[in-house]
Amino acid sequence: MRTISADVNGLLAHYQTQINERLEEFFDKKVEEASRISNHTREVVIGTKEYTLRGGKRLRPIFCILGYKCLSDHNPEAIIGASISLELMQSSLLIHDDIMDEDELRRGKQTFHIVCKDLCERQFGKNKALKFGENIAIVAGDLLEAYGEEVLAKSPFKSEHIKKALATYAGIVKNVGYGQILDITAEREGSFNEAEILTIHKLKTASYTIEGPLHIGALLAGASEADLQILSNYGIPLGLAFQIQDDILGLFGSEEKTGKPVGSDIREGKKTLLILHALEKSSKNEKELIVKALGNERVTVEEIDTVRDIVRRTGSLDYSKKLVAEMTDKAVQAIKISDFRTEAKDFLINIAGFIGDREY
Amino acid sequence: MRTISADVNGLLAHYQTQINERLEEFFDKKVEEASRISNHTREVVIGTKEYTLRGGKRLRPIFCILGYKCLSDHNPEAIIGASISLELMQSSLLIHDDIMDEDELRRGKQTFHIVCKDLCERQFGKNKALKFGENIAIVAGDLLEAYGEEVLAKSPFKSEHIKKALATYAGIVKNVGYGQILDITAEREGSFNEAEILTIHKLKTASYTIEGPLHIGALLAGASEADLQILSNYGIPLGLAFQIQDDILGLFGSEEKTGKPVGSDIREGKKTLLILHALEKSSKNEKELIVKALGNERVTVEEIDTVRDIVRRTGSLDYSKKLVAEMTDKAVQAIKISDFRTEAKDFLINIAGFIGDREY
Repeated sequence: MRTISADVNGLLAHYQTQINERLEEFFDKKVEEASRISNHTREVVIGTKEYTLRGGKRLRPIFCILGYKCLSDHNPEAIIGASISLELMQSSLLIHDDIMDEDELRRGKQTFHIVCKDLCERQFGKNKALKFGENIAIVAGDLLEAYGEEVLAKSPFKSEHIKKALATYAGIVKNVGYGQILDITAEREGSFNEAEILTIHKLKTASYTIEGPLHIGALLAGASEADLQILSNYGIPLGLAFQIQDDILGLFGSEEKTGKPVGSDIREGKKTLLILHALEKSSKNEKELIVKALGNERVTVEEIDTVRDIVRRTGSLDYSKKLVAEMTDKAVQAIKISDFRTEAKDFLINIAGFIGDREY
Repeated sequence: MRTISADVNGLLAHYQTQINERLEEFFDKKVEEASRISNHTREVVIGTKEYTLRGGKRLRPIFCILGYKCLSDHNPEAIIGASISLELMQSSLLIHDDIMDEDELRRGKQTFHIVCKDLCERQFGKNKALKFGENIAIVAGDLLEAYGEEVLAKSPFKSEHIKKALATYAGIVKNVGYGQILDITAEREGSFNEAEILTIHKLKTASYTIEGPLHIGALLAGASEADLQILSNYGIPLGLAFQIQDDILGLFGSEEKTGKPVGSDIREGKKTLLILHALEKSSKNEKELIVKALGNERVTVEEIDTVRDIVRRTGSLDYSKKLVAEMTDKAVQAIKISDFRTEAKDFLINIAGFIGDREY
């Protein structure tokens, strides 16, 4: 496993570097475009560049590249250029997400609306600076979404393929939107069940992070319906595994590795399969302890530890780990029987293992 | 003029009916799509349908149809179907705009985030209901933008043409975004000059309302660069005329016809050429009266009347009217010398007259 994992990390890093270079080039052109309009538009676009380039695993563009490489080895430079559309979509959605969640930090730095709030305070004064920041951030999100579309529409592939890729791009944004509506309302309702959680995971993670990007890449290479189906059979279970692993790390992961404060999922009251399963299997007393901790901004380290213990003791952690293993296996089987190009196939198999084992 | 104007109104009404029918069909399918996910997604999509169908002149889809008809008379049904993408974009941007402006009314009814706030109060309680409404509205705007892309990407035209139309679609959203950033920052700065106002008008009105939709329609019919240039020569001046006429109606129009409360532009402190010109030409005393009224939420009818008098006396009204006439004329000349199809050409010429003369 060590060599495979080292290989995956090496290849991921290799792609990350190339994607970041393309993003940098792209944003430099956009900064130039915005500079021709005014200094204000320039500043906002510089802000979106910094926000996008400050970090991130670039999983979506990487899956887009791999989807393409399943079917084609022509024009490897072009697919890297097109893949950044997915990172632009990601930035757009994260900026809007941060406004909705009233979050102040993203990847260890200020969220975009807080950056713009500060900009307002420095340039125009403190009055309604947060509202100013949020407004600019709403517009910036819309702008980045348009940037992503533009990148795909102008990519040097066959028009027929680009058209289909753009329909899929719109489909991903749609799925995330539906998932987000479900997420916001479920949070307000307070109640949630396994089916609802799985639907949200499918719409917000599996389609968005894995299946959709794979499809876009594959479509740019001229994928058939059958090709897309194989990628779905791989992408959907792996996406669910990815999300459940995320939930496990959210409760048991180390802060240095995940970059998130320990127990933040508990503090935010995030609805995870892990917690749902624990609630079902625990005593009345334990249930109360979980409910008390969930969504409590002042939850203590001891209370988080108690929740962890319950999740372990009820077998919920094992259950979730088993689910991750099963889903990852299902994904691997789906891709193994395909006749995709070996290089991409191997990488997709290895990346599935990486996602199942990852600590960040 | 009477017959021309009657013709234009008749044709506009004819297209409006067809566009509304297509929008209705489209949304019914989306409600079905959203219903398959959950009752909450269904409710939100029903809300976006009501919001989109409650009114509007449908100028953008109409210009899209006309852009197409300049070059082709094939498949008239298909271009009507594709044209609704521009109304979906419009709804998306208006929903986001209403959040930014904290407006409660749009087309005589509740803005989208207020509709969702009420929904929250009924279903989940009053606590943070406005924030809930704004969050759902941010997502709904993103969703409608994706709907618009989807409509274009799946339209039955040549892939090569669709690809170009989608790049233009993204370009319009980008222009509106840049214009909006400029608008928000200029408002915060307090100062504004003619060049800035004209840039905002170009980005937010001329490109968005006229030139962009014309280009999308023309591209779907296979337009050349030269065709697009003629449509720009028509669309940009007409767009500016449209905006200046809008500003005139905002100060001098009747409430029944425009649907906006008299003097709302003054109350909102809207920066218009009309006001800028009046400020430049007025005495120190008059200047103070204008500045006092501008952006004052409690401005009286008398104060608005005074501003109107100053705008008249300084020749600013005449100056703006002259500008509208000149720009409209420029637009008409540009289209007259083209070899576009007669039917569309005539309509574009007549619609220019209509925009110059309109009272709503």
